[in-house]
Amino acid sequence: MSLLVVGSVARDSIRTPHGEVQDALGGAAVYFSLAAGIFTEVRMVGVVGDDFEAGDIELLRSKGVDLAGLEVVEGGATFRWSGEYSEDMNSRRTLSVELNVFEHFRPVLPGGYRDSSFVFLANAAPGTQLSVLEQVEEPVCVMADTMDLWIGSARDELLELLGRIDGISLNDAEALELTGCRNLIDAGCAILAMGPANVVVKKGEHGAVLFTEAGVVALPAYPTGKVIDPTGAGDSFAGALMGSLSQAGAVDEEHLKTAIAYGSVVASFTCEGFGTDRLAALGADEVRERFMNYCDALQIRR
Amino acid sequence: MSLLVVGSVARDSIRTPHGEVQDALGGAAVYFSLAAGIFTEVRMVGVVGDDFEAGDIELLRSKGVDLAGLEVVEGGATFRWSGEYSEDMNSRRTLSVELNVFEHFRPVLPGGYRDSSFVFLANAAPGTQLSVLEQVEEPVCVMADTMDLWIGSARDELLELLGRIDGISLNDAEALELTGCRNLIDAGCAILAMGPANVVVKKGEHGAVLFTEAGVVALPAYPTGKVIDPTGAGDSFAGALMGSLSQAGAVDEEHLKTAIAYGSVVASFTCEGFGTDRLAALGADEVRERFMNYCDALQIRR
Repeated sequence: MSLLVVGSVARDSIRTPHGEVQDALGGAAVYFSLAAGIFTEVRMVGVVGDDFEAGDIELLRSKGVDLAGLEVVEGGATFRWSGEYSEDMNSRRTLSVELNVFEHFRPVLPGGYRDSSFVFLANAAPGTQLSVLEQVEEPVCVMADTMDLWIGSARDELLELLGRIDGISLNDAEALELTGCRNLIDAGCAILAMGPANVVVKKGEHGAVLFTEAGVVALPAYPTGKVIDPTGAGDSFAGALMGSLSQAGAVDEEHLKTAIAYGSVVASFTCEGFGTDRLAALGADEVRERFMNYCDALQIRR
Repeated sequence: MSLLVVGSVARDSIRTPHGEVQDALGGAAVYFSLAAGIFTEVRMVGVVGDDFEAGDIELLRSKGVDLAGLEVVEGGATFRWSGEYSEDMNSRRTLSVELNVFEHFRPVLPGGYRDSSFVFLANAAPGTQLSVLEQVEEPVCVMADTMDLWIGSARDELLELLGRIDGISLNDAEALELTGCRNLIDAGCAILAMGPANVVVKKGEHGAVLFTEAGVVALPAYPTGKVIDPTGAGDSFAGALMGSLSQAGAVDEEHLKTAIAYGSVVASFTCEGFGTDRLAALGADEVRERFMNYCDALQIRR
């Protein structure tokens, strides 16, 4: 089924204990699309300046990403972010943010996108995310991401969004902040009660926890020792998850578990290179192989 | 097969955001034995003062724990520990430690224990742990636990121990400290290279990671929202793990995965009450039921 993502496209400068990269292709919608593109065609809505490079457009197109929804602002500059990871890579510090053309991003869906079945609202102001909802006709499944900034500054709109979507992915600290819970399992259940039928709490190297009416399932991350740069891990996790769901055309607990497994596997690849390097070179065969290993490892003899 | 544990027996005073308990039965060997007792008979070696209560002895005996190796020091006082957990229960502060009779604990195995097949050396000075190794004849599997204190203060003896045992369980911070690695997967592999064929890194609410020559397997914790008191979770995890292995009589990757699953399940019960309360009341049926749920949750449709 058709898959739409709306979110940031950026140029990132990243420093980790393993090295650094300048002005690399990045942004939530980009990581999402490269990951989802392994499973299905992706319609991407975002905005860039005219400094965006032809090579990046070419890369996204070659990965099956439909760019009819990518707005290019003449004379504008693309969103830029730079950040630095700690020694253990469990925390990162933002060094600079230049929102540029993303600051006044008002996503407008091309007419052909309004019938999208699966929709992912990548991290953005909840008001912006709500405005996309108005433009899609009868989606099968809308999921969103969010961040601590909006939990603090746009809580009412975020709660309205939660009442209108099918699923939310957010990280553990955000789930605790949103609910005021001290325990992550309690927090996930509390978010279910806010509206979405599916809640995915991301825990980075510790995996993810899925909450649905069927119950609570904790799944581990794919164990990798080769963590070069975690940037985009969460967005590529979401991309593989939505790509897998969209390919299957179903959103029950069983399919969500499969989708989270694919998300964990693709995120582990993402971390193995700087920026989108590893993700852009990633083939469906190696994803499938690691996915099979992941499933095998979780088979427990009774 | 026969299972032996050597370790601390204590009286604990614990404060958590959910309440507090004074002078409750505790200690690594106690949590271990109560958990392992669900699977098999346990031989426990430890030391207490004559202040130890008859009710505690009775409880342990009723759970299938053989106390022929429990030394009672006349006129001595039992090891006492008190501690307090943070609001989110992810960290704890030791308020007081009185080693008492445990300070000069020199474990002596009753003659009938020297043929034990499975042996667990609960956290103690590595020299004390090594002295137990000298007393067992031809064990099938010896596993040990350790803590940051020994990594810093008795590194050489700890490395000697690692060269002579089959497995080690330790927590994530300890694994990083022991190896100097920044990544947990790298750390587990580095510990394998120190000697033990099996390494289990415990991550608390995030589960555990198993390292063997067959590969690396990350398994989640059993998700529970009812965390009242995490004291003894790690020791009861180890108890269920060794109890399960001992019952199976095998220590390959498949059996270790099953054992870790049982460990995760029993640890989740332990956290649901203060001290040993929930563990002492735990039946094999409810363990089996939660174990089946755990295995089902990890079955992923391909």
